[in-house]
Amino acid sequence: MSKGNINVSVENIFPLIKKFLYSDHEIFLRELISNGTDATSKLKHLIAIGEAKVELGDAKIEISIDKDNKTLTIKDQGLGMTADEVEKYINQIAFSGAEEFLDKYKDNEAGIIGHFGLGFYSAFMVAKKVEIITKSFKDEPAAHWTCDGSPEFTLEAHDKTDRGTEIILHIADDSTEFLEESKIRELLTKYNRFNQVPIKFGTKKINDPDFTPTTTKDKDGKETTEPHKQIEVDNIINNTDPAWTKKPADLEDEDYTNFYRELYPMQFEESLFHIHLNVDYPFNLTGILFFPKLSPNMDMQKDKIQLYQNQVFVTDNVEGIVPDFLQMLKGVIDSPDIPLNVSRSYLQADGAVKKISGYITKKVADKLASLFKNNREDFETKWNDIKVIIEYGMLSEDKFFDKAKSFALYPTVDNSYFTFDELLEKTKAAQTDKDGNQIILYAANKEAQHSYIQAAKTKGYEVLLLDSPIVGHLIQKLEGSNEKVKFARVDADHIDNLIKKDDTVISKLTDEEKETLKPIIEAAVPKETYTVQLEAMDSSASPFIITVPEFMRRMKEMQASGGGGMMGMGNFPDMYNLVVNTNHELVGEILNTKTAKKQERLIKQAFDLAKLSQNLLHGEELTNFIKRSYELIK
Amino acid sequence: MSKGNINVSVENIFPLIKKFLYSDHEIFLRELISNGTDATSKLKHLIAIGEAKVELGDAKIEISIDKDNKTLTIKDQGLGMTADEVEKYINQIAFSGAEEFLDKYKDNEAGIIGHFGLGFYSAFMVAKKVEIITKSFKDEPAAHWTCDGSPEFTLEAHDKTDRGTEIILHIADDSTEFLEESKIRELLTKYNRFNQVPIKFGTKKINDPDFTPTTTKDKDGKETTEPHKQIEVDNIINNTDPAWTKKPADLEDEDYTNFYRELYPMQFEESLFHIHLNVDYPFNLTGILFFPKLSPNMDMQKDKIQLYQNQVFVTDNVEGIVPDFLQMLKGVIDSPDIPLNVSRSYLQADGAVKKISGYITKKVADKLASLFKNNREDFETKWNDIKVIIEYGMLSEDKFFDKAKSFALYPTVDNSYFTFDELLEKTKAAQTDKDGNQIILYAANKEAQHSYIQAAKTKGYEVLLLDSPIVGHLIQKLEGSNEKVKFARVDADHIDNLIKKDDTVISKLTDEEKETLKPIIEAAVPKETYTVQLEAMDSSASPFIITVPEFMRRMKEMQASGGGGMMGMGNFPDMYNLVVNTNHELVGEILNTKTAKKQERLIKQAFDLAKLSQNLLHGEELTNFIKRSYELIK
Repeated sequence: MSKGNINVSVENIFPLIKKFLYSDHEIFLRELISNGTDATSKLKHLIAIGEAKVELGDAKIEISIDKDNKTLTIKDQGLGMTADEVEKYINQIAFSGAEEFLDKYKDNEAGIIGHFGLGFYSAFMVAKKVEIITKSFKDEPAAHWTCDGSPEFTLEAHDKTDRGTEIILHIADDSTEFLEESKIRELLTKYNRFNQVPIKFGTKKINDPDFTPTTTKDKDGKETTEPHKQIEVDNIINNTDPAWTKKPADLEDEDYTNFYRELYPMQFEESLFHIHLNVDYPFNLTGILFFPKLSPNMDMQKDKIQLYQNQVFVTDNVEGIVPDFLQMLKGVIDSPDIPLNVSRSYLQADGAVKKISGYITKKVADKLASLFKNNREDFETKWNDIKVIIEYGMLSEDKFFDKAKSFALYPTVDNSYFTFDELLEKTKAAQTDKDGNQIILYAANKEAQHSYIQAAKTKGYEVLLLDSPIVGHLIQKLEGSNEKVKFARVDADHIDNLIKKDDTVISKLTDEEKETLKPIIEAAVPKETYTVQLEAMDSSASPFIITVPEFMRRMKEMQASGGGGMMGMGNFPDMYNLVVNTNHELVGEILNTKTAKKQERLIKQAFDLAKLSQNLLHGEELTNFIKRSYELIK
Repeated sequence: MSKGNINVSVENIFPLIKKFLYSDHEIFLRELISNGTDATSKLKHLIAIGEAKVELGDAKIEISIDKDNKTLTIKDQGLGMTADEVEKYINQIAFSGAEEFLDKYKDNEAGIIGHFGLGFYSAFMVAKKVEIITKSFKDEPAAHWTCDGSPEFTLEAHDKTDRGTEIILHIADDSTEFLEESKIRELLTKYNRFNQVPIKFGTKKINDPDFTPTTTKDKDGKETTEPHKQIEVDNIINNTDPAWTKKPADLEDEDYTNFYRELYPMQFEESLFHIHLNVDYPFNLTGILFFPKLSPNMDMQKDKIQLYQNQVFVTDNVEGIVPDFLQMLKGVIDSPDIPLNVSRSYLQADGAVKKISGYITKKVADKLASLFKNNREDFETKWNDIKVIIEYGMLSEDKFFDKAKSFALYPTVDNSYFTFDELLEKTKAAQTDKDGNQIILYAANKEAQHSYIQAAKTKGYEVLLLDSPIVGHLIQKLEGSNEKVKFARVDADHIDNLIKKDDTVISKLTDEEKETLKPIIEAAVPKETYTVQLEAMDSSASPFIITVPEFMRRMKEMQASGGGGMMGMGNFPDMYNLVVNTNHELVGEILNTKTAKKQERLIKQAFDLAKLSQNLLHGEELTNFIKRSYELIK
């Protein structure tokens, strides 16, 4: 038996790292800037604990393009490296410099970004040759390292005198896009606009703040002001102290509004409200989430929650980290604790990540509860914009469902807003039927179901307006957790049948007359679609009413909106009831009309009008109805 | 100056490979099966060229689970490895065995899958210890390699006598799901159901084909058949010769139908037609694409085009490889030439991949052209299912737009189908207006625009039915490439105004009467929304007609469907024209009615009826209209 160590063959692993480790070439710039940020943070830390006797000064990272020489340079003023350190950190790939540093200084204050030394090598994804010119803060000569992407490198002394590291990328022929100012600006904006260390990219002209233009009068009294003196200053592309890194107590509402604009400059609508996340234990997480105002603007969908690690942008795919129902929120989450280079399924199973997701849910629920409590009127005005998120949350997270009891609202068609408890209280007396079931009436569309809503309101009933796409599922859940509470859409039956009371309306027609009438009407309407039902109703109610039975309709809707409902229901044909009011004058007239032709014409017109109120009259039928009606008014 | 070689430190790179190289843990099984398949293909090749003097036999790959010992074993009957080869291929990570083999035998016939030797190491994503027991086809002793995931391994002799390699994974505690039969079956079905080498997973019982049950009669003449004898056979989970690997000439329509069912067993609808892809140069690509029948079934969306490499499933995300407009097709593409471990943006810029995408577009266009030519009637019946794909293609790919001229169809509301040239020919005489513009009339909905369609048909005009969501964009494009051809929706104006001829209709009302009438009608309708237009039309046309100006509507629709239209148009309020037919009897009556109240009632009823035909009467207005109408018939 022999023993040995697995050997990684560098000739083969090197192209692999270059090509496959990062599938997205553009992240090389983020990696190099992160290294520069680390080097600066480390130096700051060493100065703070007295291990480096130098001045940090106004340390920044400078990015510059040299189009003639086809180079892109990233230069920092951090701790730099000695030749020995280059040997150790650069030439030994995957020697995790950041981890060693963290082990030595066991606290997280230095804010180290890099997880392993591989980041530097991502430079070779876009460069055919890379130079490092570096001078340590220690009193040692500068070093100059050069490598053309083969495993061979050269290392020599350099006359650089200022502290820090300069990475010079000789951009490869297939990557010349990274020599374009616009491209680099795009990358800096995407990944580094909240970087911890200032990043300089070129210069810009501003009015000299120390100069006040003098104004002179000529002999005619005409004033002339000399032009403002301009000076050239560094163009710093980032904000090193974004709002989420501050304490909530130190921020005003306006700061949050400004941060929202900073984050989404193309978004004109303001957010409805924000939630500041800030937790140390059991994981480190900061961030600000915004509830957006709903907008028909498609671009809004592009503004997703952004995930940062130590102020460096990582991704805007927060699946698994933020609960599904909150993915429509906007804002920033910053956490060094989220494992990133792993699969989504692994992420979802990870205990720490699950806790993060749970924490966010809880914070959002608490914020909503306090907003409701502190200013209910304002909360009600915002309900229409936030309801889809909340209703989806109630369906998908049981803990959120429980918490939402205190702030989820049920608006009526008349713009009153009830909590569920208030709704039950309000409707208990009038809307409890003879079997003790409390019936909650609702409409899906105020316009389309207008006549049915009117009928319910005439009885003194409250009608909710529930128009979210997932409302069928929510109703099922509410019925499931509240015994003796049933929901019914206003057009599910005639109103007297929806909430059945003991009092019976006397029919003007005898049973015999009804038996005569029913087949006459049945013969005039399509029997596959309509079931004729004779009912003694109020004489002021409509003569014909078309209703859609609740159960069937709800199952079909739930299946259409996905997940739930009854299998196969979606393809069932639509079925309606035609409720005939035996107490309406017109119905009596139909019965007593002697000529079959006139009888048929009466039924047809009444039936068409009933169809109109359920939005069922279309095409040729509608054209004919309109023609007939023009005849009637002429 | 010093020179040296970059050194990859194995202690650090090893966990990296284990964790990060493959973000999806489950692919370990695919990688190990691919290694086994390679080993079998290589041996077959060596036998074929006379370099291996052994029998291939019925070589298969066997997968087995041992729940007690918590192991998962992958065993092949391929060429195996000597101890030296284990040292070379396993202990030297990233030594690209497959590439070396390919360099040596420069042809692609062996069908090598693996791209680098790293695949094997994916085993450590799910195993805490891995054993390899392997016996080469060469006359050398078997080797037994063991490694617990640290860089240290042991290598010793083994008494295995049968040729091939056995990989034993001691599954880690956090990966016990891979000891479940159902999970392994799921992975085999996902990745390997068309693997080139048979895969055995357990056994199954079948009726013994060599046994015929005998039937005996008892004394009452009652027949008894003895039970069928069952035998246990290998359960082979894959089809090693799927349809796409065969020549089109060797396949019948039925074979394609059967393959569609094999690929999507949950899909009940058959496909409309198929396209067999087969190209060697400049890249290797085979596959079969299917045009699906449109289905309201949501699950249909899940059946995506699957991408294979040498019969191993890779992904069903074919973005960048298949043109966008063909992503709704179903089927399989198999190409070893598509780089996979790169970013999508890189893929889209890759020349070879662009050519693949272009080739697929061309093949699809050619197939459609030949289907149309060979059986136009059949093609017309399928048009409704395929039009969205074709129209989207015409919009997004100019080459496809040109080719589609020969098969893209324009159906009328009466179910006639014209090509664009036929349509121009057919409508030239009747539908060219006095300015020489040829006006193509269309409707978006046969039911909703019924009365307008009728009006156009009365004039002898053809009306197209164009109801795709992107039709506005398509119309813009057709108008842009055909001067003097304009599209107009039937309700864009009164029909006489849509196609203006020189003949004028004489108005029954004098100019004075018109001047009296206009303000009366204007006072009765909301002036922000409706512009009143008095027109002398046929007396049989409707008294009031509501029209929607073409340009504004089309811009709004295009913006709503995304991309195009005029910026900001989406939020513009709806504007209509109310066209009043001065030759209609009712309009004369309105003018001559003396009481203002009766006049208003007539206008109101006529206006409501006009709104009904444009689906604009809703809510309270509709409820009131219905009440009024019941009064009228009573």
